[in-house]
Amino acid sequence: MELQVLNAPSMTSKWGIYELSISGPAEGNPFTEHAVKAEFCGKSEKITVDGFYDGEGIYRVRFMPSFEGDYSYTVTADFGEPVRGGFFVEPPAEDNHGPVRVHNTWHFVYEDGTPYFSIGTTCYAWVFQEEEIRRQTIAQLKDSAFNKIRFCLFPKHYIHNLKDPVSFPYVGTPIDRSHITEENFLSGSWEYDYDNQFEYDRFNPAHFRLLDEMIGELEKLGIEADLIVMHPYDCWGFSTMTKEQDDLYWNYVVARYAAFHNIWWSLANEWDLMKEKTVADWERYAQILVEKDPYRHLRGIHNCLHVYDHTRPWITHCSMQRTDVYKTTEMVEEYRIRYGKPVVMDEVCYEGNIEEGWGNITGEEMVRRFWEGVCRGGYVGHGETYVHPEDILWWAHGGTLYGTSNERLKFLAKIAATFPADGLKPVKLAWDAPCAIPESERMPAEGGQAPSFILTYLGHSRPSFRKWLLPDGASYRIEIVDTWNMTITDAGVYRGFSHIELPAKQYIALIARRV
Amino acid sequence: MELQVLNAPSMTSKWGIYELSISGPAEGNPFTEHAVKAEFCGKSEKITVDGFYDGEGIYRVRFMPSFEGDYSYTVTADFGEPVRGGFFVEPPAEDNHGPVRVHNTWHFVYEDGTPYFSIGTTCYAWVFQEEEIRRQTIAQLKDSAFNKIRFCLFPKHYIHNLKDPVSFPYVGTPIDRSHITEENFLSGSWEYDYDNQFEYDRFNPAHFRLLDEMIGELEKLGIEADLIVMHPYDCWGFSTMTKEQDDLYWNYVVARYAAFHNIWWSLANEWDLMKEKTVADWERYAQILVEKDPYRHLRGIHNCLHVYDHTRPWITHCSMQRTDVYKTTEMVEEYRIRYGKPVVMDEVCYEGNIEEGWGNITGEEMVRRFWEGVCRGGYVGHGETYVHPEDILWWAHGGTLYGTSNERLKFLAKIAATFPADGLKPVKLAWDAPCAIPESERMPAEGGQAPSFILTYLGHSRPSFRKWLLPDGASYRIEIVDTWNMTITDAGVYRGFSHIELPAKQYIALIARRV
Repeated sequence: MELQVLNAPSMTSKWGIYELSISGPAEGNPFTEHAVKAEFCGKSEKITVDGFYDGEGIYRVRFMPSFEGDYSYTVTADFGEPVRGGFFVEPPAEDNHGPVRVHNTWHFVYEDGTPYFSIGTTCYAWVFQEEEIRRQTIAQLKDSAFNKIRFCLFPKHYIHNLKDPVSFPYVGTPIDRSHITEENFLSGSWEYDYDNQFEYDRFNPAHFRLLDEMIGELEKLGIEADLIVMHPYDCWGFSTMTKEQDDLYWNYVVARYAAFHNIWWSLANEWDLMKEKTVADWERYAQILVEKDPYRHLRGIHNCLHVYDHTRPWITHCSMQRTDVYKTTEMVEEYRIRYGKPVVMDEVCYEGNIEEGWGNITGEEMVRRFWEGVCRGGYVGHGETYVHPEDILWWAHGGTLYGTSNERLKFLAKIAATFPADGLKPVKLAWDAPCAIPESERMPAEGGQAPSFILTYLGHSRPSFRKWLLPDGASYRIEIVDTWNMTITDAGVYRGFSHIELPAKQYIALIARRV
Repeated sequence: MELQVLNAPSMTSKWGIYELSISGPAEGNPFTEHAVKAEFCGKSEKITVDGFYDGEGIYRVRFMPSFEGDYSYTVTADFGEPVRGGFFVEPPAEDNHGPVRVHNTWHFVYEDGTPYFSIGTTCYAWVFQEEEIRRQTIAQLKDSAFNKIRFCLFPKHYIHNLKDPVSFPYVGTPIDRSHITEENFLSGSWEYDYDNQFEYDRFNPAHFRLLDEMIGELEKLGIEADLIVMHPYDCWGFSTMTKEQDDLYWNYVVARYAAFHNIWWSLANEWDLMKEKTVADWERYAQILVEKDPYRHLRGIHNCLHVYDHTRPWITHCSMQRTDVYKTTEMVEEYRIRYGKPVVMDEVCYEGNIEEGWGNITGEEMVRRFWEGVCRGGYVGHGETYVHPEDILWWAHGGTLYGTSNERLKFLAKIAATFPADGLKPVKLAWDAPCAIPESERMPAEGGQAPSFILTYLGHSRPSFRKWLLPDGASYRIEIVDTWNMTITDAGVYRGFSHIELPAKQYIALIARRV
């Protein structure tokens, strides 16, 4: 009997999702006992993808076309005869620029060539909060500069995160955790049995459908979904599954989410805290991604204390947590040199006032770390952890931002839109402040010409004036950017050894544009 | 003919200066052609010191007795027969605690056992400014917590320091420097001939007498004179003298100043910028000090980019300039381990608003660097560089302090007076904040008992509360110190895993005292 296709649209758009629904067996364990796949063929690509079981006897296959025009497909499964069909791919939707790609070694670009200047945030567990909080998160994201958000597929068990999520990824019953409280969590005076709470080979489709929906919401906002597939903050056994269970999970996740153009794969948050996983495990997960994601979405793996070997070829960009309390985004240049990949400082402390040193810096310091990293040719991530009467913290739950950095990051995004499209490259023009020029240009001393653009950021320094030896042979219009008070002052045109009056405040950036 | 002693007091006090004046030849070059020395003999010490020529046919010998009671002396010179005499040494003057010594490996103590908690400042060229400014400096020092000041014997030629000093150390005529301006100093668009402006074997006693007087003023204020004997900021040839001229200078300086109980020898400021001097030269100067200073005053050598080999046995303490823009006093622990000597972070940037990154941090950041260094078992130095209408900057000229750190350093000094007398030792009690306990105690995990005192400093962190696992077996009274707003709040007595409410502000220190 031929496979029964329930829904096969006649068109989609480039970088949109084309989804086929197929009716199939619901008995037994469809997640392990049956397999669906489909081949999609257009003029410029032929791609085979796995389908996935979505509960209630429905199997789905998702595909993201990278070209316009006519496509044909063949669906195959172990429970029926193959089905063939076709559809038409229109030009992309207005705000769909395609997946983000690495560009110019250290930078990013959307597939259609639009520059992508990453300003990320982190809300680890926002997807599985109550609907009202999710709605607040989406509204807040709309009122922000964030074009990337890091979050987890698995629920999170950690301080300020002891409440159950609205759903679990597997069928089962979680342990009673009422004996674990904020007071005793960190002291370690409690125990639980990680395993056997869930059927780790039987997914809960409702959990994943919610995630589908939320990734779709992010897509509408033009926000990249930096999906953390594994993490160690667990009390349900999701971090201690067997190799077979892990692989089943990874294959399911790829089949389900690879077709979203705004997906980035974050293999783990703090991979080095997942004591039960070996480097061989991580490499195996990476292999699944490389083999099964035909769209080559960006792949990263985020550290706690020990940085993963970011020279591995499957890693597209460095997703870093600072490993020093004092130097955070100041390390960007070193990572650029060491790894030759885009450096995204995803965790550099959060604005807030909670108990832990990773979550209680000022808005000023949060914003300073952004500019410091940007001026060294990197990208930075935000997070917020203010004590809240109901313990709703942006970093974990999303909700509402209460801090002072969000407005300044919007200001940064506005200015970054005027930066050179090829990205920024750090150059050593001053011992006391980072400087950057366009990535594709070279300084005169290196055989180039006077650069078209120079950014320097003075951070904690607050000079009354600055003597700046501008590169020979060009005049520059200089803008004084007060990155905190969000003003841009045109200081006029300068040439050669220049004396520039400054406001003697912290957090000043200077931009010199060749005239 | 017997030497003609002009003045030989019949008494002095312990750690005071006993000075003999001898009449002698004034013709020729008395600095190189004649030599005076004296042996002093008390019940517990026998010490020989060189004398020095002080102009107008007068030679002087200075001696600092380290014991009370009867002393005899014999003066010898090449221009007459030896003279003998004696004097009585009384108990020390009320505020004279003797020279500062290294104590407990990483700390300091006065010779009489009084703890010395170093809070330094820097006024490189204050001694050779106009008298009015000198008077202001002394008045300002009185209104401060500083108990050490770094300054130069040679005049200084540098930005904000282009005016001539009131005197020069040698006889001669300085070059005309009117073509060197603040505008062109850093651009390097000027030249001069370093040498042959002065007679480098003929000192100007008036210059040294002024220095005598100013070191005496510091002594009255209880301030250690951290005398910088050589430095690179020169346009008069003082940094490029011959080996013989250098040695003449070092011998003269030691003969003249070693008897001041409040002298510390700083061989150089930024030794690594004195390109004409080799390590062999520095070792030779050190040898002169070791041989000729019978009182073993503290000896250090201060770096710019390259730290001198501080494992050298003649170096008593590490006089450090930070070598990283971002981590300054955070490095204290590492230096303590590496060198096993007191760590004095003499230059960690100055509070101010001048053009250079070494002179434009906020008062908040200046004070933060102090507490950070103290909480890691080190000592820190202050400086101030605010733009001034007449270009009088504390860091170079002394004068008046305009900044906000001075009051907070007085507050630090007040609290430090309650710290354990054996000094502070850094311990790793938290990943996100430095902690210290008394130097002589050990944590329970290292075989010790619950420490009697714990200091932790939260710096840029601003938690609303902190969960602190206090050492087992003891109760602690906890004080919350707002190091910026200068308040101390008694938070009560705690035991074990403690939840301490905090004001969610930056710059908080916690002190736990065992009850």
